[in-house]
Amino acid sequence: MKTDLIRQRPIWLDPKSGMVKIIDQRQLPHAEVVVELRTVADVVRAIREMLVRGAPLIGVTAAYGLYLAAAAAGNRSGPDGLRRDAQRIESARPTAVNLAWAVDRVLKVLATCTDDAGRVQAARMEAEKIAEAEVENCRRIGRYGMDLIARISRKKRGAPVNILTHCNAGWLACVEYGTATAPIYAAHENGIDVHVWVDETRPLNQGSRLTAWELGKKSVPHTVIVDNAGGHLMQHGKVDMVITGTDRTTFTGDVANKIGTYLKALAAKDNHIPFYVALPSSTFDWTLRDGIKEIPIEERNPDEVRYVQGLDGGVVRRVLVPPADSPAADYAFDVTPARLVSGFITERGVCRATEKDIRRLFPEKPQPLTP
Amino acid sequence: MKTDLIRQRPIWLDPKSGMVKIIDQRQLPHAEVVVELRTVADVVRAIREMLVRGAPLIGVTAAYGLYLAAAAAGNRSGPDGLRRDAQRIESARPTAVNLAWAVDRVLKVLATCTDDAGRVQAARMEAEKIAEAEVENCRRIGRYGMDLIARISRKKRGAPVNILTHCNAGWLACVEYGTATAPIYAAHENGIDVHVWVDETRPLNQGSRLTAWELGKKSVPHTVIVDNAGGHLMQHGKVDMVITGTDRTTFTGDVANKIGTYLKALAAKDNHIPFYVALPSSTFDWTLRDGIKEIPIEERNPDEVRYVQGLDGGVVRRVLVPPADSPAADYAFDVTPARLVSGFITERGVCRATEKDIRRLFPEKPQPLTP
Repeated sequence: MKTDLIRQRPIWLDPKSGMVKIIDQRQLPHAEVVVELRTVADVVRAIREMLVRGAPLIGVTAAYGLYLAAAAAGNRSGPDGLRRDAQRIESARPTAVNLAWAVDRVLKVLATCTDDAGRVQAARMEAEKIAEAEVENCRRIGRYGMDLIARISRKKRGAPVNILTHCNAGWLACVEYGTATAPIYAAHENGIDVHVWVDETRPLNQGSRLTAWELGKKSVPHTVIVDNAGGHLMQHGKVDMVITGTDRTTFTGDVANKIGTYLKALAAKDNHIPFYVALPSSTFDWTLRDGIKEIPIEERNPDEVRYVQGLDGGVVRRVLVPPADSPAADYAFDVTPARLVSGFITERGVCRATEKDIRRLFPEKPQPLTP
Repeated sequence: MKTDLIRQRPIWLDPKSGMVKIIDQRQLPHAEVVVELRTVADVVRAIREMLVRGAPLIGVTAAYGLYLAAAAAGNRSGPDGLRRDAQRIESARPTAVNLAWAVDRVLKVLATCTDDAGRVQAARMEAEKIAEAEVENCRRIGRYGMDLIARISRKKRGAPVNILTHCNAGWLACVEYGTATAPIYAAHENGIDVHVWVDETRPLNQGSRLTAWELGKKSVPHTVIVDNAGGHLMQHGKVDMVITGTDRTTFTGDVANKIGTYLKALAAKDNHIPFYVALPSSTFDWTLRDGIKEIPIEERNPDEVRYVQGLDGGVVRRVLVPPADSPAADYAFDVTPARLVSGFITERGVCRATEKDIRRLFPEKPQPLTP
């Protein structure tokens, strides 16, 4: 199914079919394709093959997946069957913590239900609650992050604030606003002059394909660059701040995000440029202390490195870049240690990348066992 | 003209036609195409459009360009015409210093000639001398660099030494052996177990297209990675050393090289991994003290960022990755400050990245005016 009438959300419940609809993000920006998810298998495949991606959206999709599991005709296995479905969904991708977080949250609600019909309704309501909560989180992240941009704008007497971002942490990765992009959209809408350096973000080019597409749709000034360029731009005063998203952040402040984020954080530090990470609290992992040692880093199919997808003569094609017999490796994420992070922009405000400061904002979160 | 019978040099004089032949490196690895250069305009175009690239090869091509200028039928303008041709060649690309160095060297020889025939012969001989000298330089770089690899190999008790390289500083960038690859080839030929992490090197993918092709042809174990991956690999002990080439290095040790080199140097420093730069002395700029402020960084056509070339269905195509209306920027090089460089591997041995140590190896080189 192809349509130009994509809603400004990457996931929604179809009121007619009762099924889940998503934008197939692998096809953007050259084709706007909507896909319907009807089964848990559809949901697992959509997450694994990255029709949907981005930590908050993966969480929301997983929650809707449990609703589909509960609603499946013939699902008479009750809570046990749902737990098995939950495990299948959770194992679709290893790095983003929102996946397990959302699944656990829906499972907890389902545990209180006593019949099939109740479970279906409860799962749907919880999934929708998670989606709406993430929208509100992103809206707040935008407000708090905009203050940081406004401060730089005042220092520059209104000259454009140059913000570098890596990967896509926009509304496509969330539900609305985005995480890293929320402050940018808020600033732009409030008349602050901004310009975004968009890292293309190899191997899957979520920056040049998705972030550039989002920013273009909202007329936010931006320039696509190769991932190699950020250090040079920073050395020459062309970057005022970096904002990225994250797939999992330890309670000590170590940040797993798209591969290459660590290199940008090093360059920002070397050039005294603030490096912020925007995230809803659902992306904190309250059990992990050492990000580099403990966060699992997904390895994906090396063909993602070897082939590049794009438009040629009106047709979307994949071209092979290296020699056909050269091996490749595809690491999806890296971990930026807390010492390189200037601060977190959360739905409760901005904090430093320290356990103490993170817990100051989220005092109700569980303490891990003493290490 | 297409041929599989490419010589193991990227440039040579055709004995029959007396013209210069080159491999068109834009077509590799999917097509092996030889192009004949007959005029100064051909040479300028080959350098500017990167049919040839890599600092040593650009220098050699420029030298042959002056031979073609001298040999051109109807070139009756003598030394003045040759100087104009020299300026055209020098202005083809701004960053690599070898271009000006080679042109100056041939011009100096030509200044001693008194007639057209003498100039043609002298230019050809000087170009060939430069080519052969760069071959010998690379051979020596290989020998000195191999010692560094052998030391790590002994420490690892023979386990594979993992070397990361960025861009292509192989024989394709030089004449034979390469600069960064020369130690790798020497180690491999001498039975030292090595494995190379090949940065694909966006935007033009000289790593995945050229370095992977070279290493594959010589059966050197290697793996292509995206430019974003190096930091993660270093954090996890999967890189033992980094070796890159350079397009221009100040006498104080600041290194201009393919965009993104600086990010790898930062990651190497952060993970206590040695970062070496291999270069013939023709790549030192004895006039520049501050690389970041003084080395001109070429900006190229943003379409190099927006389009990616590769193979699809047996045909080489270029596909557009970002939205058609998203602007892009294309910076070709960055500068790695000397403080991040563990050492230089030169034709006279290894030295630290300090003015004092560089001058110890090259005491005859001119001192700049006091800053």
